[in-house]
Amino acid sequence: MDTTKLGFDTINLGHGSGGTMTRDLLDKIIFKTFNNPYLNQKHDGSIVKFTGDFAISTDSFVISPIFFKGGNIGELAVNGTVNDVAMCGAIPKYLSLAFIVEEGLSTDDFTKIVNSVKMAADKSGVLIITGDTKVVERGKGDKIFINTTGFGEVHPKANISSNNILVGDKIIVSGFIAQHGMAIMSEREGLEFESTIVSDTTNVNFLVKELLDKFGNKIHLFRDPTRGGLASVLSEITTDINKGITIIENKIPLEKQVAAACEILGLDPMYVANEGVFIAIVSADVADAVVKTMKNSEKGKNTVCIGEVTSEHPNKVVMQSLIGGKRIVSPLIGEQLPRIC
Amino acid sequence: MDTTKLGFDTINLGHGSGGTMTRDLLDKIIFKTFNNPYLNQKHDGSIVKFTGDFAISTDSFVISPIFFKGGNIGELAVNGTVNDVAMCGAIPKYLSLAFIVEEGLSTDDFTKIVNSVKMAADKSGVLIITGDTKVVERGKGDKIFINTTGFGEVHPKANISSNNILVGDKIIVSGFIAQHGMAIMSEREGLEFESTIVSDTTNVNFLVKELLDKFGNKIHLFRDPTRGGLASVLSEITTDINKGITIIENKIPLEKQVAAACEILGLDPMYVANEGVFIAIVSADVADAVVKTMKNSEKGKNTVCIGEVTSEHPNKVVMQSLIGGKRIVSPLIGEQLPRIC
Repeated sequence: MDTTKLGFDTINLGHGSGGTMTRDLLDKIIFKTFNNPYLNQKHDGSIVKFTGDFAISTDSFVISPIFFKGGNIGELAVNGTVNDVAMCGAIPKYLSLAFIVEEGLSTDDFTKIVNSVKMAADKSGVLIITGDTKVVERGKGDKIFINTTGFGEVHPKANISSNNILVGDKIIVSGFIAQHGMAIMSEREGLEFESTIVSDTTNVNFLVKELLDKFGNKIHLFRDPTRGGLASVLSEITTDINKGITIIENKIPLEKQVAAACEILGLDPMYVANEGVFIAIVSADVADAVVKTMKNSEKGKNTVCIGEVTSEHPNKVVMQSLIGGKRIVSPLIGEQLPRIC
Repeated sequence: MDTTKLGFDTINLGHGSGGTMTRDLLDKIIFKTFNNPYLNQKHDGSIVKFTGDFAISTDSFVISPIFFKGGNIGELAVNGTVNDVAMCGAIPKYLSLAFIVEEGLSTDDFTKIVNSVKMAADKSGVLIITGDTKVVERGKGDKIFINTTGFGEVHPKANISSNNILVGDKIIVSGFIAQHGMAIMSEREGLEFESTIVSDTTNVNFLVKELLDKFGNKIHLFRDPTRGGLASVLSEITTDINKGITIIENKIPLEKQVAAACEILGLDPMYVANEGVFIAIVSADVADAVVKTMKNSEKGKNTVCIGEVTSEHPNKVVMQSLIGGKRIVSPLIGEQLPRIC
């Protein structure tokens, strides 16, 4: 889109007024980009036909910087919510999309972000069906915040619940950890590592669907280790199940340059956010087949089984080190990396 | 809730980390307040059973100040989305709730807002089923922004669409206009009017349901004149219908003190935001009965029929003045009152 033709270089307060400037912004950028019969109703909301069990998830994205290596806030806002819906064992279908723009954001940047939303939505197979745009004064926001709320149809074979987790279940991780957090961090700190670290933001919904098609209720839980990283999510799971989790340190999938970057910045990769990685906790009898299926997929080619559920040390995650030592993995307490998503 | 027992006086970045501080905030305030089986799943999303046509609407609330005469951002965020869902001819059922908090917001204020969300949700008969909390650094937000996304079941008798509007249809307004905008404005400007102007924020979903129960598809359109006010919403409707709208100036329901405040501040009440007022465009043969039903309701006791749909002046709203003059009512262009909702 040639933004010089839009007639405005920046988003300003008038674009959030609900008057003709808002309509102009919507017509020239939003409706033009997403053009679908739901959004084209241009009403206060959209009407959709539903039958069955639906999963609903909401997330606001406040990441800084808004453009980073491997993506931007637009595609992150789609992938994040699509993945959250998928983690419920559902097939994402629709998204709502709400912007809070800081006055002065360039129309160019806004358009790039909207286009990324569209591209990511298309890749995930979801439609943007309703939205909202608000503008706040300079200094009262930070360029752009995006909320997406996603709706998905629960997979007919899915039965995802921490209540289903059994002793002996395997803990499988779909790819290298800590990439998203370290990409953002190196961007912020202006660090240049030997080769560039790129965010792993991507949609995992089709791989999740394939696993549910094949393994149904043998998949006991899905979770995506975003804020707080792998350590926090595993810890949170153990608090819910009255069982323990043991993971093997040298199985944790971690790229060398990400490990090096973490060391330089004094961060533990176990607590660093991921965006395109998920954890599956599955029945032991299908674990090898699950890993094989995941490794065959682009989104899961670096899948590893990192541990299992134990009757020992209930409510605790224990990491077994290379030389046989054991340590408890605590959840993240405060903030390691603010505004990572 | 005695916030001194929470152990933290302000919301800080750690509360948005996804770690134990986030969990603490959620357990002590959010889950405790909303306590329902959907939210208690504590998963990335909630699973809900749906059948039929559903209306979905999203809105981010960025109002400043966050506390104002007649309400606060919490109840506004519920009522606003509940009403948007109702305007689609639907019965609101569920809401998602996403906070973007600026570091340093007092726990007291946050708790008050959360309690107002709960109170407003109860009054509207909706459940908060999933949520999100993000925290941004001081100066990168403005106290608190809230996104709510609402889901409602389309009323079996509803057929709400601007395509159904006929020449002769009556334009009915449910109450005094411009109250919300002027309440916010006087708060901001520190003005004290003779008697206090109070925001009209409220939920209108039960009145909307009653109208649909009684008059079904004789109700052709509902709209709530929020941002941009009555003038902008009527203008927007005429752009969609290839017919005109004539309204009678002295029928517009406007309280004297609101009119006076508008005059002092140089604002046209037709462009000032409302939050608890809605417009119904209905078949002429039921118009009197609709007005009567609305007047019998607390939420519609000041209902007035202000005009009708005409074949003349298509795509234009014309206001007929007391002494017989006519003028075109244009939509709002830029921004009269930023951050009014």
